[in-house]
Amino acid sequence: MTQPPVAVIMGSDSDLPVMQKALDTLADFGVEYSVDVMSAHRTPAVVSAFADGARGNGRKVVIAGAGGAAHLAGVVAANTTLPVIGVPVDSSPLGGVDALYATVQMPPGVPVATVGVNAAQNAALLAVQILAVGDEQLAAKLAQFKQKQAIKVQKKNEALHEKLEGKAR
Amino acid sequence: MTQPPVAVIMGSDSDLPVMQKALDTLADFGVEYSVDVMSAHRTPAVVSAFADGARGNGRKVVIAGAGGAAHLAGVVAANTTLPVIGVPVDSSPLGGVDALYATVQMPPGVPVATVGVNAAQNAALLAVQILAVGDEQLAAKLAQFKQKQAIKVQKKNEALHEKLEGKAR
Amino acid sequence: MTQPPVAVIMGSDSDLPVMQKALDTLADFGVEYSVDVMSAHRTPAVVSAFADGARGNGRKVVIAGAGGAAHLAGVVAANTTLPVIGVPVDSSPLGGVDALYATVQMPPGVPVATVGVNAAQNAALLAVQILAVGDEQLAAKLAQFKQKQAIKVQKKNEALHEKLEGKAR
Amino acid sequence: MTQPPVAVIMGSDSDLPVMQKALDTLADFGVEYSVDVMSAHRTPAVVSAFADGARGNGRKVVIAGAGGAAHLAGVVAANTTLPVIGVPVDSSPLGGVDALYATVQMPPGVPVATVGVNAAQNAALLAVQILAVGDEQLAAKLAQFKQKQAIKVQKKNEALHEKLEGKAR
Amino acid sequence: MTQPPVAVIMGSDSDLPVMQKALDTLADFGVEYSVDVMSAHRTPAVVSAFADGARGNGRKVVIAGAGGAAHLAGVVAANTTLPVIGVPVDSSPLGGVDALYATVQMPPGVPVATVGVNAAQNAALLAVQILAVGDEQLAAKLAQFKQKQAIKVQKKNEALHEKLEGKAR
Amino acid sequence: MTQPPVAVIMGSDSDLPVMQKALDTLADFGVEYSVDVMSAHRTPAVVSAFADGARGNGRKVVIAGAGGAAHLAGVVAANTTLPVIGVPVDSSPLGGVDALYATVQMPPGVPVATVGVNAAQNAALLAVQILAVGDEQLAAKLAQFKQKQAIKVQKKNEALHEKLEGKAR
Amino acid sequence: MTQPPVAVIMGSDSDLPVMQKALDTLADFGVEYSVDVMSAHRTPAVVSAFADGARGNGRKVVIAGAGGAAHLAGVVAANTTLPVIGVPVDSSPLGGVDALYATVQMPPGVPVATVGVNAAQNAALLAVQILAVGDEQLAAKLAQFKQKQAIKVQKKNEALHEKLEGKAR
Amino acid sequence: MTQPPVAVIMGSDSDLPVMQKALDTLADFGVEYSVDVMSAHRTPAVVSAFADGARGNGRKVVIAGAGGAAHLAGVVAANTTLPVIGVPVDSSPLGGVDALYATVQMPPGVPVATVGVNAAQNAALLAVQILAVGDEQLAAKLAQFKQKQAIKVQKKNEALHEKLEGKAR
Repeated sequence: MTQPPVAVIMGSDSDLPVMQKALDTLADFGVEYSVDVMSAHRTPAVVSAFADGARGNGRKVVIAGAGGAAHLAGVVAANTTLPVIGVPVDSSPLGGVDALYATVQMPPGVPVATVGVNAAQNAALLAVQILAVGDEQLAAKLAQFKQKQAIKVQKKNEALHEKLEGKAR
Repeated sequence: MTQPPVAVIMGSDSDLPVMQKALDTLADFGVEYSVDVMSAHRTPAVVSAFADGARGNGRKVVIAGAGGAAHLAGVVAANTTLPVIGVPVDSSPLGGVDALYATVQMPPGVPVATVGVNAAQNAALLAVQILAVGDEQLAAKLAQFKQKQAIKVQKKNEALHEKLEGKAR
Repeated sequence: MTQPPVAVIMGSDSDLPVMQKALDTLADFGVEYSVDVMSAHRTPAVVSAFADGARGNGRKVVIAGAGGAAHLAGVVAANTTLPVIGVPVDSSPLGGVDALYATVQMPPGVPVATVGVNAAQNAALLAVQILAVGDEQLAAKLAQFKQKQAIKVQKKNEALHEKLEGKAR
Repeated sequence: MTQPPVAVIMGSDSDLPVMQKALDTLADFGVEYSVDVMSAHRTPAVVSAFADGARGNGRKVVIAGAGGAAHLAGVVAANTTLPVIGVPVDSSPLGGVDALYATVQMPPGVPVATVGVNAAQNAALLAVQILAVGDEQLAAKLAQFKQKQAIKVQKKNEALHEKLEGKAR
Repeated sequence: MTQPPVAVIMGSDSDLPVMQKALDTLADFGVEYSVDVMSAHRTPAVVSAFADGARGNGRKVVIAGAGGAAHLAGVVAANTTLPVIGVPVDSSPLGGVDALYATVQMPPGVPVATVGVNAAQNAALLAVQILAVGDEQLAAKLAQFKQKQAIKVQKKNEALHEKLEGKAR
Repeated sequence: MTQPPVAVIMGSDSDLPVMQKALDTLADFGVEYSVDVMSAHRTPAVVSAFADGARGNGRKVVIAGAGGAAHLAGVVAANTTLPVIGVPVDSSPLGGVDALYATVQMPPGVPVATVGVNAAQNAALLAVQILAVGDEQLAAKLAQFKQKQAIKVQKKNEALHEKLEGKAR
Repeated sequence: MTQPPVAVIMGSDSDLPVMQKALDTLADFGVEYSVDVMSAHRTPAVVSAFADGARGNGRKVVIAGAGGAAHLAGVVAANTTLPVIGVPVDSSPLGGVDALYATVQMPPGVPVATVGVNAAQNAALLAVQILAVGDEQLAAKLAQFKQKQAIKVQKKNEALHEKLEGKAR
Repeated sequence: MTQPPVAVIMGSDSDLPVMQKALDTLADFGVEYSVDVMSAHRTPAVVSAFADGARGNGRKVVIAGAGGAAHLAGVVAANTTLPVIGVPVDSSPLGGVDALYATVQMPPGVPVATVGVNAAQNAALLAVQILAVGDEQLAAKLAQFKQKQAIKVQKKNEALHEKLEGKAR
């Protein structure tokens, strides 16, 4: 059976509040996804099996969120040739720099596409962009999203003007 | 006229020694690419025009390398819905942390797929992985690359054993 | 039509609480300003158009506040020869270091006059100082401000003495 | 007697190799400048006297370069209402982060316009931009500089293409 | 008139909650002190005059607390040959690292005796230790303090044992 | 067949110059060890198999050295209950901080005993200390090592005295 | 009289909330331990005496937690050949990086097995792993713990699925 | 027998190139000193004995230089009530930040007067300043040193002017 094209995994269920934004964004684009808690350190066999089988199961992209010595994205990348997107999660007193370094500084030969600390929405958008390379409809949705985004900024600008003028009166 | 699927751009020709590894890797995979020096700060119109037209010109992925307050990848990402891969280049006394933060910490809505500091080879591999989502032949090459990589490590291990035994005798 | 000499822009309306201090300070000095939300990443065309036209529209100085991979000031600086003042805004788990590096570490040829993290008041004062280079009245106001500032510190010193003596009794 | 509009000062003559780029750039723009070694810590009276008299002596902008606990720009800013541009110099094992923080993180009321670590050329350009606010000729030179800069990048791009094609043949 | 041997100064009255521990500790040792708010950046003349006259006025040690680009201790050290103790105050989004670097990384020839971030109590103890070099009675008080401190730790240890045993029952 | 009690592994043969000190120290203590290059990212199956079988094969301690996003020690720790000692190797422009964070900041439940950046000798000593918990002879050797170490420092002190006196004459 | 095999010490009773997790984990494994507050800086003689006598008193492993310039683990390691596990405690505005560096960067010859910032549970597990090198029963308990841990993650995964499906309906 | 008032100690003879500047400066001021290599980690008993006896042996100030997890100054401070000056030495891949944090972030009650990374000359000057609190002759020498220092900067300024004018001709 073919599985959803995007797999969202996280090292702990405590990462869900951060990763939820990825799920919402994928849903907004109508991209099917699965969600799983699996840990590179506590369930390594689950992670290996997941990664080994990912391409064969119809996966296209993996999004992996983890904090601290965040190895999840790297371990998945070690076991698949699919693009792996890493979300460093801020979950220690070091403010997410530990997770960022542990996710982005991968050795030659095994890339992880890293987004900003806690930037799960961007991870989802990157996944959509990757899928859209071969999917014109999705590409069109991304173009619409970009336009809406620009309009939203412009509306915020107008709201700001109204607010400041209101003060000035 | 359709342009190569991968565009490699860099903020300065002084980034070429780092970015060369991306070019070599793309060539190894038989993926066509273009290379250009263009600067988010010194030729912003060139960068905007490039990014605006990228999808229409047949581009699939952009790889952007820059150092310092590295804005190149971000500015491209602002003007296209293609996946943009950022390579933070170590080119200031701050050791590349400035380029890393300026590349990876993008705002919600505009992702840059960031690889490690100076990790141009990984940027190329990530581009290949993205293209391989819709290209079985390329996916097969990636699988071969992964195998060769593993074999290379094992050969290095054997060489190490010979070397250390040689010493021991 | 000539626009106000100082343009205050910010990447997101969530930057307003920080940037408000710039607006208040400009108002205190009787310097006219405009305020706009525009995003280097979400409305790049708006930012380019703004920057391209700034000098022609009568602008003298631009103040740009942004957080994370803060590109706003740099993108404006890429498109104008006016002095651009950058305010790194603390808006991510990295405590504003990301915004500081992304604002200050500009490449040769394209300076951004960077102030401290969240230091919007100083950005406004710097703008006033720049305008005062050719405006004796404004220079006089700055001298008064400096004196008042010194007096304020001395009054705080006196208040401290009273408070501590009060305790001692 | 009126002194040159731009004063370039540095905390130690060991900063000259870094600061020389500021001098060269000012000369390129035909902007007159003075150069002095003066230390916030070793000749504080010289620095205070310089700063106190700067505006009265016809100064328009001060550029101050210093390393370590770089106080020079801040001490000048404390004693003048002219715009003060700070160049953090990389001169300790901490890689210039110490000088950057000590220059940029000024308290409310006393701004220093900070450029990147060792970025003396940008300090000079910023000084020219400030002078150009009231000097159309200088503004025109800046516009020319910006164009030449863009052309230089495009020439480097062409040189890169020739070089890479040369290899390919 | 001779002034108290220890001068405690701070850059802003907002530093008082941190610096209060210095005052309390000096009082505990029966060491006379003065307290003043003076700013290296907002009242530089006050600071210079204070530092210039400090030795002549009978001062023995200066304790200076400041945050951000903390120049206060350094500026005092530039103007006196008395020992100057610097307290970096955590007062910006950078967590006190800015104040630490700006206080400790002084250039050759002008030392500041730096204590930890917010460590005002230690600044006071260091001042007492310096005075005690020539004051046997004060040295004896320091020895007692050290003993009491050790006893306090041992009592905390006993309290911990009781608490944990209480739980165990 | 029982394998040596200490397994030294490293992510790349380029780590050997750093890790050699571990090998030499183990040899000095007469502790048998094996050495292997295996990569958490390039030969993940080799690493998993090694770790899974380690205890059964008679291993007592694992020493793992790696740089960048150093996952090797963590991946081994995920697959064994033996004590795993991690050596962060300085192999990127970030100066080893990336490897340190990626090694030490392990999640609850999966410890890695981390030593300093490049501190392979200490990793070996820690392994010997662990083995010595149940081996009185090895404990005696450690005591001797500690004594010799102290004597070496004292001899260096004497040599320093001779050298400085030599200068003084 | 023989003392418990694991000694848990901490520099201040304010470290107890962090270190409690070590106590709980040791209790869960049925490993006997002692707990003491002792300070490398305030009760150095107590620490030296403790460390000197530790092996002779039947100790096997020491766990030491401390914050700031965390010297406790290092001072113990200087005075014993037992394995010493260091827990850097986040107790200053620097977010635990100070404690991490002061614990892990030990000089050649004197290792401290360092765990993550505040990672007291992992310190306890490491102690159990060290004891288990010569204790098959304890090794079996560790294997069970690892299994339970994996099951816990899988249960969290199931709970996540239920929760998300619940939302979906 | 009374020992010299200033004791200079260092953790390793490899610190001598850095610490030599302290010796030279003390000699310049005619202040007697001793020099010793002693290690908080390798010869802890030597360090404790030294510190315990320091005041009784006529010591007035201790200067301690060490790198990495630099505990030397802190361990001395734990065992004496004399002022202890710490010199963080840059001796690891972390650029001296490790030594700085491990020296300056001492707990309440046990101060170390910390100078900049490798700033041994400043440590000596601070020692002289402390001795000069009760020694008018030494205070006069410090005043002369400060004057000479200022003159040296002014001579460097003149030399710079000559050099730049020479170029200009």
